[in-house]
Amino acid sequence: MADELYWDDLKVGYRFESERFAVEAEAVKEFAAAFDPQPFHLDEVAAAESFFGGLVASGWHVAALTMRHFVLEGLPVKGGLIGAGAELAWVRATRPGDVLQLFSEIVECRPSRSRPTRGTVTIRSETRNQNGEAVQIMTTRIVVPRRTSAGEGQSSGGPAPA
Amino acid sequence: MADELYWDDLKVGYRFESERFAVEAEAVKEFAAAFDPQPFHLDEVAAAESFFGGLVASGWHVAALTMRHFVLEGLPVKGGLIGAGAELAWVRATRPGDVLQLFSEIVECRPSRSRPTRGTVTIRSETRNQNGEAVQIMTTRIVVPRRTSAGEGQSSGGPAPA
Repeated sequence: MADELYWDDLKVGYRFESERFAVEAEAVKEFAAAFDPQPFHLDEVAAAESFFGGLVASGWHVAALTMRHFVLEGLPVKGGLIGAGAELAWVRATRPGDVLQLFSEIVECRPSRSRPTRGTVTIRSETRNQNGEAVQIMTTRIVVPRRTSAGEGQSSGGPAPA
Repeated sequence: MADELYWDDLKVGYRFESERFAVEAEAVKEFAAAFDPQPFHLDEVAAAESFFGGLVASGWHVAALTMRHFVLEGLPVKGGLIGAGAELAWVRATRPGDVLQLFSEIVECRPSRSRPTRGTVTIRSETRNQNGEAVQIMTTRIVVPRRTSAGEGQSSGGPAPA
């Protein structure tokens, strides 16, 4: 795909994948100490007694790692990935040593109702482990400039936004 | 509230707040370098040229900080805060120097359909800045044990879960 994508370049059904990346115990504990300090994310012994039966990554850590790989290996959108919102489902625990990979697909593209220079694109990303099992399903809405934004203030020449 | 809360202790309408916490430029850049490496989160000069017109925190950083304060100053749920999913809306940028605070409310409590030992609790958390403006609205679903879980395998004595 091109270096810098506009809303006009993005289509429903476009798919992309990230590289694979390992989640290590030290990183799980470091993230948890900063952002989700609970025993099942911090300490193997305490985690063994918990709901999870062992150390697991914070769901917010999985989300943040997903974002990292989305930025580095995802869509090179003009102006950067600007999120308006997201939905997350953590469907399975992520454990130290797991190797994750994102499988993403554009599921909706909408012009902005109020701004002819922008649109939104909705992307569904499954983060899967080394067994092919989904650990997280993330749906994000990003704000993407339209090609016509270079001519802001001029007619877009296209159909009026909904 | 009690030290360890069960599903049975939690009611729709219960509200709680976090302490206030500042978001500093160094932390914004550090989080971004690890999880959201985009110019408007990493570098003031590049950020000035961006959509945001200046350095802003990653939405995932705001979410992670919200989780931190939710864990430290939120609901002391028996067994810990175990998230099943979340919805996020980033309604305003968070900039270095902003001082944030969570305002949370329980909006739904449901018994599990399949497991009489658990229920889910849905919490809406607004993260507001020093001007009282919402920067993020997060709705999370957590899995919470019922008091009857001590008697797993016995009748709960209450109404059957839906």
